[in-house]
Amino acid sequence: DDLLQDTGIANSIAASDPESLALLLESVPLEPRLISWQQVPNAKKLDVLVEMRGDPRTTVIESTPKEEWEIIFQNVDAEQLLEISDTLPSDLLEIALAAMGKQQRQFFQDASQYKDEQIGHWLNHELLVLPTNAKVRDGLRLLRRELPDTTECIFLLNRAGQFSAAVKLSSLFGEPDHLPLVDLSEDYISVVKADQDAVQAAREVQTSGYISLPVVDDGNKLLGRVDIVTACELVNENYERQIMSSAGMDEDEDLFSSVPTSAKKRAIWLGINLMTAFLASWFIGLFEATLQEVVALAILMPVVASMGGIAGSQTLTLIVRGLALGQVTKSNRKALLDKELKVGILNGFIWAFVVGAIAYLWFDSSLLGVVIGIAILLNIIAAAITGVILPLILSRLKIDPALSGSVILTTVTDIVGFVAFLGLGSIFLL
Amino acid sequence: DDLLQDTGIANSIAASDPESLALLLESVPLEPRLISWQQVPNAKKLDVLVEMRGDPRTTVIESTPKEEWEIIFQNVDAEQLLEISDTLPSDLLEIALAAMGKQQRQFFQDASQYKDEQIGHWLNHELLVLPTNAKVRDGLRLLRRELPDTTECIFLLNRAGQFSAAVKLSSLFGEPDHLPLVDLSEDYISVVKADQDAVQAAREVQTSGYISLPVVDDGNKLLGRVDIVTACELVNENYERQIMSSAGMDEDEDLFSSVPTSAKKRAIWLGINLMTAFLASWFIGLFEATLQEVVALAILMPVVASMGGIAGSQTLTLIVRGLALGQVTKSNRKALLDKELKVGILNGFIWAFVVGAIAYLWFDSSLLGVVIGIAILLNIIAAAITGVILPLILSRLKIDPALSGSVILTTVTDIVGFVAFLGLGSIFLL
Repeated sequence: DDLLQDTGIANSIAASDPESLALLLESVPLEPRLISWQQVPNAKKLDVLVEMRGDPRTTVIESTPKEEWEIIFQNVDAEQLLEISDTLPSDLLEIALAAMGKQQRQFFQDASQYKDEQIGHWLNHELLVLPTNAKVRDGLRLLRRELPDTTECIFLLNRAGQFSAAVKLSSLFGEPDHLPLVDLSEDYISVVKADQDAVQAAREVQTSGYISLPVVDDGNKLLGRVDIVTACELVNENYERQIMSSAGMDEDEDLFSSVPTSAKKRAIWLGINLMTAFLASWFIGLFEATLQEVVALAILMPVVASMGGIAGSQTLTLIVRGLALGQVTKSNRKALLDKELKVGILNGFIWAFVVGAIAYLWFDSSLLGVVIGIAILLNIIAAAITGVILPLILSRLKIDPALSGSVILTTVTDIVGFVAFLGLGSIFLL
Repeated sequence: DDLLQDTGIANSIAASDPESLALLLESVPLEPRLISWQQVPNAKKLDVLVEMRGDPRTTVIESTPKEEWEIIFQNVDAEQLLEISDTLPSDLLEIALAAMGKQQRQFFQDASQYKDEQIGHWLNHELLVLPTNAKVRDGLRLLRRELPDTTECIFLLNRAGQFSAAVKLSSLFGEPDHLPLVDLSEDYISVVKADQDAVQAAREVQTSGYISLPVVDDGNKLLGRVDIVTACELVNENYERQIMSSAGMDEDEDLFSSVPTSAKKRAIWLGINLMTAFLASWFIGLFEATLQEVVALAILMPVVASMGGIAGSQTLTLIVRGLALGQVTKSNRKALLDKELKVGILNGFIWAFVVGAIAYLWFDSSLLGVVIGIAILLNIIAAAITGVILPLILSRLKIDPALSGSVILTTVTDIVGFVAFLGLGSIFLL
């Protein structure tokens, strides 16, 4: 009880919508989280679970007594189950499937045939559909029923269940009853293929001007629709994945995961980084004799490495965004490399001069100034080239450049920087 | 013409929607971009400008002959002008304002009173409004006009123009003509204040279950609405800002900005980084004598620094996301610090042992192994503390932690790492 007062969560539970409640539960440590979770009414629990991120969701799922699940899953539908199924133990999945009607179970199975990354996995099945030859009066009759959320169109299907047209509800008013709906159909609505990339399809919905788009299979059969609420979730999740993966984490990361879990998850990334750091050290070790003679090289080493790292990560970030937006393609990658190379050469010369001058003044050695200047120039140029080419290679290899790009880039700029600086130092300063 | 064929852009211009066209123009170098821009029909140009990012938009605006602007701005409305006004020279702004009707000009001026970061700046003014005492028949009459996009509710206003209720269009059907609309009003629709943070308000729309939310001023007067299309733009832009600012860039950055512009923009970030790198070097310089004696220290320095940097950036990334989602607050920051500290201590010990063992084996010195182990432990702990506290301080100072957080963090972990490692080395290895 004390814990609850501390976090100020107690009063909020009753009043909150599922989204806020999910954010709230995620933002408190494990103990008060589980106490608060118990106080969430069972009827609300499913909606909250759907809104939560994977890791914190797992913590509350594990704490929920088995007998509660039948109540929680009382009105579960296919969409909700799909959202949480990757964090659900198989026995609970069984309970949920048993609670669903035949049609919802069918929807769940259909969706499960598509991968997480495909839009077919994330369909909304609440649709207004009519046969292609339906009239305005048929459309108006549909409106008297309760409409599903985010519905603005009636989809017209031919006898084979294939999508033929979409008609905006709002275009029905004032039209004569006997007018064929096809005459009012939208000319430019996009039709999404179920096996299309989920994030790309979601972006298409966001910019389509429609609240949802129809989704069809390879045979043009209407399977469902992507609504804008789902689209926002997919796009936001993708951005979070990008941000989190730049630090070697995933978007499901729990603010308050248990210490061992969290340490273990992060250890992998630290381990990968350690290997690259030792690799860089090994290259430094090649110049042991030089370092012993010219200690200024050891002192200035980090400057060379970090200037390359920063310049490279700027290029990398720009290219990764361009790839995500589909703006970096075969046709412009040469021009991009050309431009980034020129930027690198320009900035390389500027900073070579600045760093060279400072090093000269600090250590009173013009030769040292020249050596570090050349090393900076080379490293910034190498950074520009790597920043363009690396994400292109990674994305062709189907490796997420947001995740592994920066580690590899830093390894390259560290090694190029150290080798150039210490190598030139060995030649000119010994 | 060759340029156009190279980029494959020529055919796409006529067929494309403004969003795709904007992405396409952004993705080609300056020269073909301007040639393609000329081929965009004038009637389409405004819509394309609205969709483009700031920097590339500036390039096409500058290339457009002055006499074209009157045609381009023929049907400009307040919202469109607000989207592009920050990249518009004042003479073009004048032309646009002159082309607008009195009401649109008023909307523009109203919106300009709010800052970019406030939702009042981004309102949609196409509304369905009725007086509070209106009946179902009044509502149905409204539907016969052409409906604005993303409209699902009629807003009811009292005589003072204050917002009193929202009624879903879909709830009107099948209801008796004389029923007061108030009886059908939505119980839980959120009302947004115009001075609220734009991104927060946009997120509220995305998760509200509504397609747009009413926006009021301090006196509850209805000013307009935030629609979900605008909400998606605001949220996506904010994510892009976060991603780009981690590399010291902004979301308006042009894939193909001219080399000097691009070099200049990035130079600032490189300069800031250079100062921090030299600061780290200065600390290394304090241990010149030690480095001369024990060259292994110079070789292993980067390992200590980078382990701290990686561990710290993981914590930082997690906290920055939590801050952005409103999940890190006064009430849980102690608990967060506590948890991150424990994770740091655990990972610190693990990696201290691993790195210590490798260093021992490599340089055959158990004392060196102990020294680097302790340095790693201290640095990972310092990284955890900095990763939690730094973004809290920055956000209190109204400085974007996504922008400056990682530079400051790396500076801290570099300095702590170098001082701990070389300091301990001076004590135990000399």
